Amino acid sequence: MNVLIVHAHPEPQSFTAALRDQARSTLEAQGHQVQVSDLYAMNWNPVASAADFASRDNPDYLVYALEQRLGVKNQSIAADIQAELDKLLWADLLILNFPVFWFSVPAMLKGWIDRVLVSGVCYGGKRFYDQGGLAGKKALVTLTLGGREHMFGEGAIHGPLQDMLRPLLRGTLAYVGYDVLEPFVAWHVPYISQEAREAFLHSYRQRLQHLADDQPLVFPRLDQFDEALYPLPV
Amino acid sequence: MNVLIVHAHPEPQSFTAALRDQARSTLEAQGHQVQVSDLYAMNWNPVASAADFASRDNPDYLVYALEQRLGVKNQSIAADIQAELDKLLWADLLILNFPVFWFSVPAMLKGWIDRVLVSGVCYGGKRFYDQGGLAGKKALVTLTLGGREHMFGEGAIHGPLQDMLRPLLRGTLAYVGYDVLEPFVAWHVPYISQEAREAFLHSYRQRLQHLADDQPLVFPRLDQFDEALYPLPV
Repeated sequence: MNVLIVHAHPEPQSFTAALRDQARSTLEAQGHQVQVSDLYAMNWNPVASAADFASRDNPDYLVYALEQRLGVKNQSIAADIQAELDKLLWADLLILNFPVFWFSVPAMLKGWIDRVLVSGVCYGGKRFYDQGGLAGKKALVTLTLGGREHMFGEGAIHGPLQDMLRPLLRGTLAYVGYDVLEPFVAWHVPYISQEAREAFLHSYRQRLQHLADDQPLVFPRLDQFDEALYPLPV
Repeated sequence: MNVLIVHAHPEPQSFTAALRDQARSTLEAQGHQVQVSDLYAMNWNPVASAADFASRDNPDYLVYALEQRLGVKNQSIAADIQAELDKLLWADLLILNFPVFWFSVPAMLKGWIDRVLVSGVCYGGKRFYDQGGLAGKKALVTLTLGGREHMFGEGAIHGPLQDMLRPLLRGTLAYVGYDVLEPFVAWHVPYISQEAREAFLHSYRQRLQHLADDQPLVFPRLDQFDEALYPLPV
């Protein structure tokens, strides 16, 4: 497999970075090819803007998704976006590796999503969910958070973590066609012992060694909906 | 009321900007004070990083939330963050005004959330949800999207829009204590007529004129949970 790890953490020595390194070494030991996009180290620009297009279909009014479609076709999209898109298309497995900021991805990673998952390649028209442009590839979300596990789930104070992650798991990764695997979660990270951190690294390694056995999460399929995207009778 | 509108759209002439202007003029006509943070126009920096702190409690290892707490107390937090925090604390009503990017906020706005909702002021310890630092204030999310209304809701292809917005409505705004009002949504915006857009502006004005009558959405209260944040018997 080809694997792209997209990592976003403002502290280079973070435990989240240790998870990134664990994934790289474990997957390489299995014979996979691994590339890492370390967004803070790259000084990634997270802001989707008119500057992303060397030439524009409409220089007077920016419709970002439209210019993405044309920019990719004409090879006039910004070089940093094209480089990440090339890695994305190369990878059979995408790992998003980040600390939860506000029950979501850090802005740095959100801006990678906003700019790199270009219209016309990753999705467009009726090409989304199981028909998405990245169908056949797998995605894994690996995250660290401050909360404890009992704060998440049905009836828990924050509800199920997967509900909080819905715009990412369903609205982004499943939307562009990925088989989305169950997230790997390291809980309560700022407050735990070195031993507890090593236990997370150990279980992450085991998870990665058996990733092929994972059943992806279930999301909508376009054949459940009609041409206008109204639900068909079950 | 004091009102802060935080606006993030890469196109200055967008319909989203027209909603921003509608909110400003409608609320000012009612006698409210309005400030606008136009993040693209401000060239806002959305990246939470070590550079946000002139001095650090721990210069060798960045724990962002911890440095936020100390930076605000010591007045050593970055000037752009302090300026936005001052507006946030001044405002009785916060309006987040944006186009949906990936069923979520644009990275530009995510970075405003990541950097401005500082620990120690907006939340911290047991100060969250109804006990959050901004309790007593109201928040309204005003958004534009490409999808049609029938693509959202129970059984619809994307499910309920409020479920997609959960990390924002519950995980961010309710978390810091806001009374979160039902979002104002302009559907299918890139594809609709000028008349349809004017109808959205008209209904937005009416909504804003009667905002005081709105019942906020319902979220958890800390008195439903014990000291360790396990749910109490109902």
